[in-house]
Amino acid sequence: MANILIAHGGGPTTVINCSLQGAVEAARASGKVHRIYAARFGAEGVLKGDLIDLTDAPAATISKLRDTPASAIGSCRRKLGEADYPTILETLKKFDIDCFFYNGGNDSMDTCHKIDALARREGMDLRVIGIPKTMDNDLEVTDHCPGFGSAARYAGISASELALDASALPIHVVVLELMGRNAGWVTAAAALAGRLTDCRTLTYLPELPVDEGRMLADIEREYAKGKGLLVTVSEGIRGMDGKPLADTGIVDGFGHTVPGGTAQHVADAIMRKLGLKARAEKPGLLGRASIPYVSEVDRREAYAVGEYAVRAALRGESGSMVAIRAERAPEYKSELFLTPLAEVANAEKKFPSEWIADGNQIADAFFDYALPLIGGNLPEYALLRK
Amino acid sequence: MANILIAHGGGPTTVINCSLQGAVEAARASGKVHRIYAARFGAEGVLKGDLIDLTDAPAATISKLRDTPASAIGSCRRKLGEADYPTILETLKKFDIDCFFYNGGNDSMDTCHKIDALARREGMDLRVIGIPKTMDNDLEVTDHCPGFGSAARYAGISASELALDASALPIHVVVLELMGRNAGWVTAAAALAGRLTDCRTLTYLPELPVDEGRMLADIEREYAKGKGLLVTVSEGIRGMDGKPLADTGIVDGFGHTVPGGTAQHVADAIMRKLGLKARAEKPGLLGRASIPYVSEVDRREAYAVGEYAVRAALRGESGSMVAIRAERAPEYKSELFLTPLAEVANAEKKFPSEWIADGNQIADAFFDYALPLIGGNLPEYALLRK
Repeated sequence: MANILIAHGGGPTTVINCSLQGAVEAARASGKVHRIYAARFGAEGVLKGDLIDLTDAPAATISKLRDTPASAIGSCRRKLGEADYPTILETLKKFDIDCFFYNGGNDSMDTCHKIDALARREGMDLRVIGIPKTMDNDLEVTDHCPGFGSAARYAGISASELALDASALPIHVVVLELMGRNAGWVTAAAALAGRLTDCRTLTYLPELPVDEGRMLADIEREYAKGKGLLVTVSEGIRGMDGKPLADTGIVDGFGHTVPGGTAQHVADAIMRKLGLKARAEKPGLLGRASIPYVSEVDRREAYAVGEYAVRAALRGESGSMVAIRAERAPEYKSELFLTPLAEVANAEKKFPSEWIADGNQIADAFFDYALPLIGGNLPEYALLRK
Repeated sequence: MANILIAHGGGPTTVINCSLQGAVEAARASGKVHRIYAARFGAEGVLKGDLIDLTDAPAATISKLRDTPASAIGSCRRKLGEADYPTILETLKKFDIDCFFYNGGNDSMDTCHKIDALARREGMDLRVIGIPKTMDNDLEVTDHCPGFGSAARYAGISASELALDASALPIHVVVLELMGRNAGWVTAAAALAGRLTDCRTLTYLPELPVDEGRMLADIEREYAKGKGLLVTVSEGIRGMDGKPLADTGIVDGFGHTVPGGTAQHVADAIMRKLGLKARAEKPGLLGRASIPYVSEVDRREAYAVGEYAVRAALRGESGSMVAIRAERAPEYKSELFLTPLAEVANAEKKFPSEWIADGNQIADAFFDYALPLIGGNLPEYALLRK
């Protein structure tokens, strides 16, 4: 009988708790697990030996994880140093952990990889499996990341709703800011508004530097067409000088500038330089926490990667991350496989620049890729004013 | 056989199109209506004689109004002058309109009232009925306004989702900005996060001036409790000097300062003065456009007020607004009645100051009032880290 430990790393997603549910339910169903632990607040909990014992958590509570955003066990952003790894192994030994699961993005996969390597060096019988998670969709090898489909659905549908408001009452340019410091996958999904509504859309991703003068000229021209205009910007867009268009001017503990205010910066420029009214909207963390916009495909896959990870570890696998392979024709289907942690640790998958046309239009190829992940049941609106 | 005209005024809500659907379907069912017109972009369309003929619009299109946010026929914010009223009557005469319906807030009810009075003076056989709509919930006489329940549901549930993110990864204070320049009804609903999650909440409405020093002291104290902190501010909160805490510095066509950036202002103050990390989120117009958060009670009542207005006009009523009377015990039920336009035109119902405790806590009395309107099926979260 094995003891298992699950930890969350980095920012949560709408469906990270579904992976936890999948892992816990697979562990229970296996008949091979003695105790199920979760780390309270991620690596912090592992370092402190502060674990939550979920072995006897009621099945009804575990099933509520499906509809609980953020991390039900807590997460952290602690950057681990070399000195931390022996402490982590101490906790794993103290609780007699046989299988360790780290559910996170590329930083977390790096951590996973180091724990696995150290445990092997020390001759510990520990199995380490990474469970992928990131709304940013920037993990390598896997077709896509659990968390992305829901974030993209949030971006696409809420952008459409804003676009309808902007075109129904066309008194201002509406500027929407979405999360994504370096990766534009989620922001690109906002261009769905151009397909579902009659509003004009311009979409700016962090992968391409932005010429602010040209941006304002494009905004002026598109707004003049009189159908309303939605401008979507990733929080991380940079100018031609490589510097963020806007930030809070504050530096965080890792030395990163705290982003924020990009949409307000663009809205202010529209008002001051073009003399048009503008509004900036920034749903921020809601883009990774909003349950009513969840993608059912994403929810199902997030559950499956947690389940698959536990089954893999129980049959003796280690040093791998669960990844997704997908086919989109004739209809979407996906299957899971294991990939070595070394191939995903610290790597970053960028949005293909050939999917961005004219600096602000998103190519059909992106929607061929993303629509199956965003999921079906897209809204159909009544536009009587046309 | 009557000809009817429906117009939208001011900012849309999530359910304003449900009122349109109710009106159109009631007109069709009555057997007494010849032509059904809608004004394209509200008063602008009426002034220009730019009407949409919905008489033969497919039933399937009309039923899609249920799930279409913003205004499907378009709205405007044009402030009408005395010279506009004769022009409006010209359009009504030109299209041989017997019944005119204006769906809006207190400004629109004032317009309705003036059109009714002028038509009477001119001896026209015109029936004028106001259909209430405003997410701000600030209309007098009526228990509440269609549009409020959905905006409050959006505020309450999305605040809860942000609160869960803030307490799962407690690395920053999360500051949420919600719409409401003068009325705090919607912002108050964000305090639902304190009931549905383990996160601490502070909620600031525009009805009470804010002492920024005390606000920061409260934030520092509550954040130190270590469970995450969600601070919700109405966009219109003012300091002790009566001036907005933040605005864009830009003045709109009506001479009003364009609000915006209140949450970012508070987040910046938290970072600079308290040395804590903070994030500002501002879903903005999504609070009045997000279909996935719609309140079913609100949707049903919005439909009913449109239907009731048409039936009332067809039986000869005029000069009134449809209002809602509600009972909350033993269970919620509501009924509709007519109230003279004069009693609602330009009046503003403020949030009761006795429902605000300690400047930032929302009393149970508000939730007794608002929960039936927010609707059932509130989320229940799994909080395993407790």
